[in-house]
Amino acid sequence: MSASIGSTVSHNMRIAFCCTNTKAAPWIAGLSAALPGADIHEWQPGAPQADHAVVWAPPQQFLDEQPQIKGIFNIGAGVDALLKLRLPPQAVLVRIDDGGMAVQMAEFVCHAITRHVRELDVIEIAARRSEWAFRKPRRREEFPVGVMGLGVLGSLVANAVKQFDYPVMGWSRTPRELPGVQCFAGEDQFDNFLQATRILVCLLPLTSETRDIINARTLSKLMPGAYVINVARGAHVVDEDLIAALDSGHVAGAALDVFRTEPLPAEHPFWHHPKITVTPHTSARTLRDESIAQIAGKIQALERGEPVAGVVDLQRGY
Amino acid sequence: MSASIGSTVSHNMRIAFCCTNTKAAPWIAGLSAALPGADIHEWQPGAPQADHAVVWAPPQQFLDEQPQIKGIFNIGAGVDALLKLRLPPQAVLVRIDDGGMAVQMAEFVCHAITRHVRELDVIEIAARRSEWAFRKPRRREEFPVGVMGLGVLGSLVANAVKQFDYPVMGWSRTPRELPGVQCFAGEDQFDNFLQATRILVCLLPLTSETRDIINARTLSKLMPGAYVINVARGAHVVDEDLIAALDSGHVAGAALDVFRTEPLPAEHPFWHHPKITVTPHTSARTLRDESIAQIAGKIQALERGEPVAGVVDLQRGY
Repeated sequence: MSASIGSTVSHNMRIAFCCTNTKAAPWIAGLSAALPGADIHEWQPGAPQADHAVVWAPPQQFLDEQPQIKGIFNIGAGVDALLKLRLPPQAVLVRIDDGGMAVQMAEFVCHAITRHVRELDVIEIAARRSEWAFRKPRRREEFPVGVMGLGVLGSLVANAVKQFDYPVMGWSRTPRELPGVQCFAGEDQFDNFLQATRILVCLLPLTSETRDIINARTLSKLMPGAYVINVARGAHVVDEDLIAALDSGHVAGAALDVFRTEPLPAEHPFWHHPKITVTPHTSARTLRDESIAQIAGKIQALERGEPVAGVVDLQRGY
Repeated sequence: MSASIGSTVSHNMRIAFCCTNTKAAPWIAGLSAALPGADIHEWQPGAPQADHAVVWAPPQQFLDEQPQIKGIFNIGAGVDALLKLRLPPQAVLVRIDDGGMAVQMAEFVCHAITRHVRELDVIEIAARRSEWAFRKPRRREEFPVGVMGLGVLGSLVANAVKQFDYPVMGWSRTPRELPGVQCFAGEDQFDNFLQATRILVCLLPLTSETRDIINARTLSKLMPGAYVINVARGAHVVDEDLIAALDSGHVAGAALDVFRTEPLPAEHPFWHHPKITVTPHTSARTLRDESIAQIAGKIQALERGEPVAGVVDLQRGY
């Protein structure tokens, strides 16, 4: 039952599909079409050993029962939940580079920025009362956008925002260069980045270093009248600190798509806070066709011993 | 009191400022700074003859009293209202190419598209009831966007929409070419354009040919589940026909920023139609600083006898 070392996919390669809250049949059909000859099945307890796994929030039992697995392919961009599990020690953990998510994220973030800067939410509330609520135009120069996290998603988001003539800055753990984007890196430059930012966009991976990164201290560094857009993970934000900053007036509003508990519990104060827009983790969804093509390509590369993009550094956490 | 023919601006050049609903002082200060030595004043009945005029919706009396005017500079992109007046026969009518409007228009249109396709309006209504209303993602391939009018504004809008991976088409009176945009032109190709369009964006100038262009016939040609975004002029849309198409279900929704009467009268059915989003002619506003710089440049070019961009073809109507 070993995988081939040759240049083609082994005809007896086994791939286990183990994704919670995901309809298995179309994924298995798509992966089977992309990897002819491979045996792709939905995992059940006690199933035979697989060579690779396609996963989303798998149970610990799955990983414990599959010690020989070589490649674990996560169908989302964030692997924080997966890294809380015990993984087979030799397994390579690979995340999807994009899977159609970057463009969705870019348009979602641009929508939130436009809506806030142009006060379209205020205008629409007035329109419900048949009120022609013309607002004085605001200068986009006064709304510099700071994107935290400059991976595949963050870079595309920064470029999309730049196209609408907002000043755009980026901050990442290691130095990056993006044309037309003022890039900051590391702890040392974090406060400078925050002080120059009015619209803060969080696209960071969730790691021990980035957990709670949007807190009383960092919010206080932002320009007055700041706006916070979180499309990464709920645990990046200290909920009470954000509410306090909104209530003090220093932060003017927030668009939150991710939460510490999802779905956001009905009693959570975010739901009815007048300055918060809540959306149900919808900023970017894995698109099946794009993802299947990417995963199939990565499995073939791994089987051929070629380099694979998106391998997670377990120490770094993304 | 004649203007100079030389290569610099005459020191006795007179410019009349005649813009309704516009605060004159900052425009006059800005134009004075940009055109040192020129005499720039807010027009009053009986004022001396000016060489040029900067106008927005001027009264007929102004034009009648200023027969010697050489250049009339309109501070908006649409000149339809101006063309209803009797103009001094030798005057050149010039519109602002952009004045910061194109990028505003692009983000406004992208916001409307994202909001509709991603169902963010539905999601936000549910959120008011603390409801985690996750919607199945919709494929952007199924929402081809058709932009009517491919001038400075329409071209930038088409490019911005393209960046978010929607299929984009354009239609214009005379053939245009835009990379990545499927371009249609003239009467002959109009129906083909409509039939391939699901999201119709109107950025046309208002002329006798384009008045009422969004009517029962043209709406019926659009793909089922169409969406209409009008950011040009209210008279492009036959109001009753749009409401009928919405009520039949063939058109799924509309974002309307311009109306036959503005402000939209409180009793107009658009205000409370559940499928219509009304905004108060806010998609793109002339930005003073950009406009002043453009107008000053155009006046200098005209005085030097150089070609000037944005001269209106009175026959064509834009």
